[in-house]
Amino acid sequence: MQEAEPARSAPSRSASDEPVPEGIATAGGVLSHLATGAGGEPEARMVDVGRKPASDRSALARALLQFPAGALGGILAGGGPKGPIQEVARVAGILAAKRTGELIPMCHPLALDHVEVAFSERPGDVLEILCRASCHGPTGVEMEAMTGASVAALTVYDMTKALDKSVRVVELALLEKDGGRSGRWRASDG
Amino acid sequence: MQEAEPARSAPSRSASDEPVPEGIATAGGVLSHLATGAGGEPEARMVDVGRKPASDRSALARALLQFPAGALGGILAGGGPKGPIQEVARVAGILAAKRTGELIPMCHPLALDHVEVAFSERPGDVLEILCRASCHGPTGVEMEAMTGASVAALTVYDMTKALDKSVRVVELALLEKDGGRSGRWRASDG
Amino acid sequence: MQEAEPARSAPSRSASDEPVPEGIATAGGVLSHLATGAGGEPEARMVDVGRKPASDRSALARALLQFPAGALGGILAGGGPKGPIQEVARVAGILAAKRTGELIPMCHPLALDHVEVAFSERPGDVLEILCRASCHGPTGVEMEAMTGASVAALTVYDMTKALDKSVRVVELALLEKDGGRSGRWRASDG
Amino acid sequence: MQEAEPARSAPSRSASDEPVPEGIATAGGVLSHLATGAGGEPEARMVDVGRKPASDRSALARALLQFPAGALGGILAGGGPKGPIQEVARVAGILAAKRTGELIPMCHPLALDHVEVAFSERPGDVLEILCRASCHGPTGVEMEAMTGASVAALTVYDMTKALDKSVRVVELALLEKDGGRSGRWRASDG
Amino acid sequence: MQEAEPARSAPSRSASDEPVPEGIATAGGVLSHLATGAGGEPEARMVDVGRKPASDRSALARALLQFPAGALGGILAGGGPKGPIQEVARVAGILAAKRTGELIPMCHPLALDHVEVAFSERPGDVLEILCRASCHGPTGVEMEAMTGASVAALTVYDMTKALDKSVRVVELALLEKDGGRSGRWRASDG
Amino acid sequence: MQEAEPARSAPSRSASDEPVPEGIATAGGVLSHLATGAGGEPEARMVDVGRKPASDRSALARALLQFPAGALGGILAGGGPKGPIQEVARVAGILAAKRTGELIPMCHPLALDHVEVAFSERPGDVLEILCRASCHGPTGVEMEAMTGASVAALTVYDMTKALDKSVRVVELALLEKDGGRSGRWRASDG
Repeated sequence: MQEAEPARSAPSRSASDEPVPEGIATAGGVLSHLATGAGGEPEARMVDVGRKPASDRSALARALLQFPAGALGGILAGGGPKGPIQEVARVAGILAAKRTGELIPMCHPLALDHVEVAFSERPGDVLEILCRASCHGPTGVEMEAMTGASVAALTVYDMTKALDKSVRVVELALLEKDGGRSGRWRASDG
Repeated sequence: MQEAEPARSAPSRSASDEPVPEGIATAGGVLSHLATGAGGEPEARMVDVGRKPASDRSALARALLQFPAGALGGILAGGGPKGPIQEVARVAGILAAKRTGELIPMCHPLALDHVEVAFSERPGDVLEILCRASCHGPTGVEMEAMTGASVAALTVYDMTKALDKSVRVVELALLEKDGGRSGRWRASDG
Repeated sequence: MQEAEPARSAPSRSASDEPVPEGIATAGGVLSHLATGAGGEPEARMVDVGRKPASDRSALARALLQFPAGALGGILAGGGPKGPIQEVARVAGILAAKRTGELIPMCHPLALDHVEVAFSERPGDVLEILCRASCHGPTGVEMEAMTGASVAALTVYDMTKALDKSVRVVELALLEKDGGRSGRWRASDG
Repeated sequence: MQEAEPARSAPSRSASDEPVPEGIATAGGVLSHLATGAGGEPEARMVDVGRKPASDRSALARALLQFPAGALGGILAGGGPKGPIQEVARVAGILAAKRTGELIPMCHPLALDHVEVAFSERPGDVLEILCRASCHGPTGVEMEAMTGASVAALTVYDMTKALDKSVRVVELALLEKDGGRSGRWRASDG
Repeated sequence: MQEAEPARSAPSRSASDEPVPEGIATAGGVLSHLATGAGGEPEARMVDVGRKPASDRSALARALLQFPAGALGGILAGGGPKGPIQEVARVAGILAAKRTGELIPMCHPLALDHVEVAFSERPGDVLEILCRASCHGPTGVEMEAMTGASVAALTVYDMTKALDKSVRVVELALLEKDGGRSGRWRASDG
Repeated sequence: MQEAEPARSAPSRSASDEPVPEGIATAGGVLSHLATGAGGEPEARMVDVGRKPASDRSALARALLQFPAGALGGILAGGGPKGPIQEVARVAGILAAKRTGELIPMCHPLALDHVEVAFSERPGDVLEILCRASCHGPTGVEMEAMTGASVAALTVYDMTKALDKSVRVVELALLEKDGGRSGRWRASDG
């Protein structure tokens, strides 16, 4: 490790008007969550959102849980239509979305306006879990939606694994995001 | 809602020797995390592990992240071999595994002996994340391994989504578990 | 469980100008924390505060702890005037109020401006605990005040239960709230 | 503040066989959560459970919520029999019971074996919430049961306060405890 | 404990235009985190920031870790330049800074815009850890910077203590703060 | 990143009788919290304590806070002997010690038997904070004692910084540890 410049200048939050540095460029694009350290190596970093304007943000993520053939019906019948498994998983997903900044190291703490978790049965013994998060702020809520969908899916797995441990998440993906500089985005196959 | 029996008897922890009740039976098997409420409806419940003997427990879960063609190499080169993205995701996964009982409502708080998170590149631009958890206790650590793998994958997604938001988890599954009454289990396609 | 409409439309955050849906109507009024699910059943929901204007909010809650005859004086003398029991309970109440959104599932995370916890002895061996919370934001702080008063009372109970386990909370109630669309409210017997 | 004895001796965990000090005596009994500081003043303290033998522990707490005349029926009908309000409150109570050591400063972190939360309608528009907690350990679970009942009641309040803010907790009390040196205890009016 | 004034007036958030009370004056200055209780004794208090205008805030804190002669080089070589010890400590510091309001009782929950943790080797086997935090808000981020530096230093200690337990923090101090009514401040020897 | 061996074998918890691997050797000793990754680079790791026997563990840590000349007396007089600043800092230190496993990534969650925080005035305007932690378990409690002392010191700083921001921690060090394979250890200058 080389000696860095004097303490007062590193780490610094530049006071000039130059744009927020954009991370490290790779063949595939720019990694905003990396920076070049004093010795030239890549380091993880939290993006500084202090100069980003606040806007309405929302994001929608989806988790798909694959059940063995015929099992999902039995589970849903056991738990009743809109029964306790969904309610427990919904609560877990909402609570986890609110704590995203504690779980994902480079995420900012956000004052979410809304989190919503919905369940539906899909053909082929698939349970679809959708999580939408929204806030008004300087950074997006993609990770809040992803975290909510993920923890809701883990909760369903926990409550059904006694039946069959081979239940598995076959997709956890972002479907949509809105707001911010990059605006609207939709997954191509959402 | 019907009136339940007197307060003193519900909820009760039976002092007799009868086996721990096993939940609600469905066509596909038994849902251990549901019970029948006073009015006959299913209710969520935490399994009572007070009479289960302690044994050595371990579990291994896997998350697979699909990157766009050619992107994973760039990301790993940008972050360096065993670079900061993996280290940050490893820390996030380990911390989350330790907090599983806060995130998954019906999980018991556990004194984990060990959590390990490993990354490897798989053919087809797939990043494999393995999380193994272990403890000596009365209940399994499947959810700890699943939660650690899931949060490590979410952290990789967070740190690479600026490159391409369509990165997605294409599998989150339990591969192995050992210990407890049901003993050893291996996923058929692990 | 019926199949819901396509993923993209549920859950949705309506982009139109129609008012925020108000929950489910009952004989006694409207339950804002319930919504009607895809299959017609009630589901829990977090209220979307994204279009509510920010205003100054405050709320005052009260917990009353009943001690056995003569015991409160001894406790307060043992702990000294404004002694450690009150200080510990005050800290616990303030910390809990700040974490309300982690504890109460449908509460929004809030940037509280202030939390205050005060204790006074009331006639009849009653300890009164008041908790006031305030913030500037789109939703009220009633739950923050209630949570702070509740955890402060639980802390006093914890620190005095060795003396007498029959100490009990005989009231936990909201006394006042200010701000928001519904404005000022005072309990009729506060 | 007087100068205390040398650092090495304070705070100390005595290695002798003398019994664990019992706190500060008052007219009404002994306050185990207070100790006498170096300067003679009372100080808060966590009880050292390092020499207490482990035993089976359980505790049952009750919260009673008073609704306005006629309102409880409407709420339960809106939420359906064993509907979402109870499920959400049950999850909140279970999660909070597991985190008691984070909320109540002098409580020990405990590996709970079980937490159970049950609801029943009582005459006079009263909703009864029972929370039972159990573990095998060196210290009791009274606070876990009390915290679970309290947070479940706060959650019901949160989800019904839009209907009527004057809903209030009219009792939060320990009904039973078992295990430990003091053994079985029942509230006289439980 | 004297009886306080009626419940409705204490605690109160004054509605008048008088300045926020400034705590308790001492020979050395004013302690803003203390107030005078109803009985005249000092009580801890959270400062009410409800009337403070929001401004850009930042703070820089430093922790210095003293290693035994020659040990720091070995540690850094073992962990590699910018190796895993620094990455793990950086993540721990960032996560802790975001949770300052949970750890430091009288701190307000803050929506941090940025946290940065940097490491450099100093002459005499000293590892310097700098943590800068920033936000736009009504109160300063000094404690967030201090907490981040402190937990990063504790993490380095944890990961190196097997080598030598006598590694120690020899400084944890605020170097700079900017923003708010008191504006810019620099430590005299920073 | 090289491709690692097949998923099933990494990460693995060896079933043989060989001793737990001891980390990475450096000139100064062994770093137990690092391991060699599949590609040969060092990686952070949590030590597996699954085969370590449980024993009585305790640790004592010290934080020294340097106040400007004459300021400490004023602060202690303002806060009263054993006044609210110490009580608030004691509670914060105890709560933080219990949450060490959430803050320090490679620490194990521990069921602490006891945490104690004591304050004394030292010559030269120095406030000494001692934190002792103890448990019966397979791993030491050094980090719990260090974390408790650190957060107690940060809390004192928070509550006195309005008086003088140049208050600083001039030592945070482990003084003693007992228990485990390495047994008793005392700092040479404790």
